[in-house]
Amino acid sequence: MATRSGRRPGDSGARAAIAEAARRQFALAGYDRATMRGIAAEAGVDPALISHYYGSKRQLFASVVELPVDPAAAVPALLSGPPETLGDRMIRMVLGVLEDERARSRLIGLIRAGASEPEAARIMRERFGEELLTVAAEQLESDQPRLRAALVNSLIMGLVMSRYIVRIEPLASASPDQIAAALGPVLQRYVMEPLGGNAG
Amino acid sequence: MATRSGRRPGDSGARAAIAEAARRQFALAGYDRATMRGIAAEAGVDPALISHYYGSKRQLFASVVELPVDPAAAVPALLSGPPETLGDRMIRMVLGVLEDERARSRLIGLIRAGASEPEAARIMRERFGEELLTVAAEQLESDQPRLRAALVNSLIMGLVMSRYIVRIEPLASASPDQIAAALGPVLQRYVMEPLGGNAG
Repeated sequence: MATRSGRRPGDSGARAAIAEAARRQFALAGYDRATMRGIAAEAGVDPALISHYYGSKRQLFASVVELPVDPAAAVPALLSGPPETLGDRMIRMVLGVLEDERARSRLIGLIRAGASEPEAARIMRERFGEELLTVAAEQLESDQPRLRAALVNSLIMGLVMSRYIVRIEPLASASPDQIAAALGPVLQRYVMEPLGGNAG
Repeated sequence: MATRSGRRPGDSGARAAIAEAARRQFALAGYDRATMRGIAAEAGVDPALISHYYGSKRQLFASVVELPVDPAAAVPALLSGPPETLGDRMIRMVLGVLEDERARSRLIGLIRAGASEPEAARIMRERFGEELLTVAAEQLESDQPRLRAALVNSLIMGLVMSRYIVRIEPLASASPDQIAAALGPVLQRYVMEPLGGNAG
């Protein structure tokens, strides 16, 4: 039944083509403005096939939205090096992802959707609350692991917004090394150092 | 045509009512989806009056978009205290703004627009490049003042996204004191300490 077109009902390629088209449409148009019809057209399938595989638009978004790195693999890799340079390894991994155009556009799409649409924000919260933050938090031996994971998330969101979306200078044109020098010690603090500070 | 006072063509209140309605509509609907007609309806004026006062939608956005604090006043006030607690004063001023519902919704609207719409991002970049970053950078006696100002901007965008828009826990429900303890030292680093770190 499947042929080289990879676009027919029942073809294993159709499901992947829908997912890829959905990621692109959500990234380009945002969650609200992306349509099942537009996603179907880009994937070259009948809109009914999307419902068949994924259900509603909300379910489709929740299924296809994913981080550009797999936290279950990335977190242990990061933690396997010397603790005193963890922040530097983290920012370099983040920049490695963000300097890759495809991964960057996917992450920008996610953040755009989360910024604008409460439904998308809720899905991000649920998915990443379970996926990234929990994995990271469980493996950190510091106190307040979930707050630390959330602070890391906050730094990454701020970096994506300021450097890649709004493009505030000189952050937008700074080299990865300059960014790593500025933000690596902050990530080091977020994951390893006392968070109480001497405030208050 | 509206008959309440402060809503008539030529009335000095109409201009302010349009600005207020525009800020609300841009915050609620985003830059793309906000319409001159909707803004006119909310302000109780004829749509032609908006063009008369502000020109195009782009010009309207650029005119009414503004930071919840006036950098020309806020920056010197922050810098007038002891340098070693500048980061703590900064985060407490930011939180003071963000815990105020009206100021928060205005800032969220701005960040939403900037996240989703290149045109809005461009306006933010132009406006705040000149307004906030330049004022802050000129008054900082550290090296790389513009990079420092951009890092501060990045931290604030990340905080707004993670705590108030996507609402990542436990950042979303942390007390202002907890946030200040976690982020004050980072702001202190961004504005006062060497940025080179020991990375690389």
